[in-house]
Amino acid sequence: MPQTFDLGRFALESGASLPARLAYETHGQLADDAGNVVLVPSYYTGTHESYRPWMGPGGVLDTDKFFVVVVNMLGNGVSTSPSNAPAEVAGPRFPLVTVWDQVRAQRLLLDALGIRRLRLVMGWSMGAMQAYEWAVTYPDDVDALLPICGAARCSPRNRVFLEGVRAALTAGPAFRAGEYTSPPVAGLEAFGRVYAGWAYSRDFFHHGTYRELGYPTVEALLDGWAADHARMDANDLLAMMDTWLSGDVCRGRPGGYEGALRSIRARTIVVPSTTDAYFTLADSEIEAALVLGAELRPLESDLGHIAGRPGIRATESLGVATAADDVLIKHLFPD
Amino acid sequence: MPQTFDLGRFALESGASLPARLAYETHGQLADDAGNVVLVPSYYTGTHESYRPWMGPGGVLDTDKFFVVVVNMLGNGVSTSPSNAPAEVAGPRFPLVTVWDQVRAQRLLLDALGIRRLRLVMGWSMGAMQAYEWAVTYPDDVDALLPICGAARCSPRNRVFLEGVRAALTAGPAFRAGEYTSPPVAGLEAFGRVYAGWAYSRDFFHHGTYRELGYPTVEALLDGWAADHARMDANDLLAMMDTWLSGDVCRGRPGGYEGALRSIRARTIVVPSTTDAYFTLADSEIEAALVLGAELRPLESDLGHIAGRPGIRATESLGVATAADDVLIKHLFPD
Repeated sequence: MPQTFDLGRFALESGASLPARLAYETHGQLADDAGNVVLVPSYYTGTHESYRPWMGPGGVLDTDKFFVVVVNMLGNGVSTSPSNAPAEVAGPRFPLVTVWDQVRAQRLLLDALGIRRLRLVMGWSMGAMQAYEWAVTYPDDVDALLPICGAARCSPRNRVFLEGVRAALTAGPAFRAGEYTSPPVAGLEAFGRVYAGWAYSRDFFHHGTYRELGYPTVEALLDGWAADHARMDANDLLAMMDTWLSGDVCRGRPGGYEGALRSIRARTIVVPSTTDAYFTLADSEIEAALVLGAELRPLESDLGHIAGRPGIRATESLGVATAADDVLIKHLFPD
Repeated sequence: MPQTFDLGRFALESGASLPARLAYETHGQLADDAGNVVLVPSYYTGTHESYRPWMGPGGVLDTDKFFVVVVNMLGNGVSTSPSNAPAEVAGPRFPLVTVWDQVRAQRLLLDALGIRRLRLVMGWSMGAMQAYEWAVTYPDDVDALLPICGAARCSPRNRVFLEGVRAALTAGPAFRAGEYTSPPVAGLEAFGRVYAGWAYSRDFFHHGTYRELGYPTVEALLDGWAADHARMDANDLLAMMDTWLSGDVCRGRPGGYEGALRSIRARTIVVPSTTDAYFTLADSEIEAALVLGAELRPLESDLGHIAGRPGIRATESLGVATAADDVLIKHLFPD
């Protein structure tokens, strides 16, 4: 069971507020000077459990050295979310929680834990979006940044992808504008099937790499994605999607997107996948060029967006581990 | 109004049969020796009208020289389709019509017109799939082949894309397993929104190229795709999709996929788009390498799959026109 932190009535960027609790899990021991902290925010449909493949002595994040705080995003079904919130903000009444809101909520948790400074903030996918937002919002408190298959903002093509899966989800007969009384299964399954096409690459399907992930056929993969999403809560999926769509480090900041990225002081290694269909290599190239001193280190992979997911194939995991090692060493022993 | 050709009770590859009529349009004059014929099969959601930007004196297909036959695929809403078929095969009772069936039906039409030999068969997207099938099925009767943003078979990733849009379409409350009494609008709109994400490229959205196509914003583009598809017939969309999924030049032929492509005798120029997300450049590279003497000539474009659509932007249209010109000249005056 994760630990919980009560945010009280948390004031959101939109002006609304949310009675909110963060669920989080820690690994390793906090140093006396609180100088060994790594923060890892959760990703879309992920939880604190999803990152466990990265944790452990000698792991991607060496828990003999680091105190790792893995935080469930608001909306993910573990922290306060449409599916578990008080009635006034439950289901379709759940307010928009932006990426910036997520980061400010995480800051309050770290404050309560006596943590000011982060050795590293890292994450995959939406975890990377939150990591970027951290490095822009608190440039003095983030030593190193490691965004994996993510971006500093939700690109137009990414929005189009998300609006497609949203339309598939909400077209179902049982969705009833979020006021469903039983799961809107047809919509959830359609959501999973549409999403599956975006998650991987052309080569993944061409070479039958799905078999390596345990799917004997393309149909089995589609059925698997449908079944996995049929078990999820539709309003949670939509709340997290709205967070994703809100992601943009330049919102409300002078200097715009470029200015925001140039304001990052963390040592940064940007790790895209060469075949990611929505957090694209092209976008990561732009962002790595804007962050001062950042290194771009793509995962050469046929796994598409999935390349950076914790616990995925050994080659890609090694790439992530090496990048984590290097960005940690570099901020401890800069050139 | 297009002309029509009665196929009688057309025997399908599946063993079923379909009382079928082909609707087609011709441009130019048939030469006395019937030696100036170009065949252009329709594409997904396209009709005989869709290809008109390619037609005309001095056009992509010079109608002063060529007799161009544009055929509506069975299932497209103009030729016999779920939406217009006799009750016994209407709506969800419409049988599977494979790409091979489409080609055999077109052959019967050409027979009736006194045409044996084709100077060229060309088409965009599913039109290209039918063109490949023509060149494999009747290798002695096709002089030149020009597949644009298409493929000789529906790749696994292409299938995943299609199963996603199918799921979005059929998740709607009004679909009722195809027995809808009024259009299943929510599903049709979801279909359009999901499809939009696949039709273009990352750069198309990144650079705001949608404005050039008349969409002021990404949202306007998504709304446009939703509205366009809301007017279509769901069972027609599904029938054409099943045709698309059936596309595979090696089905039922010895030698498999490679053997089928190696059997093509037509002078071939393969024209993919460099940014097509489902009829990918990588697949076209493989196919161009397998067809004897074929030339690969990609459209360098940010328009994704849409790059080869008739009437699209001047640069891409010029690429298509030049390829058509060259493949016609080359088969008339081979090296």
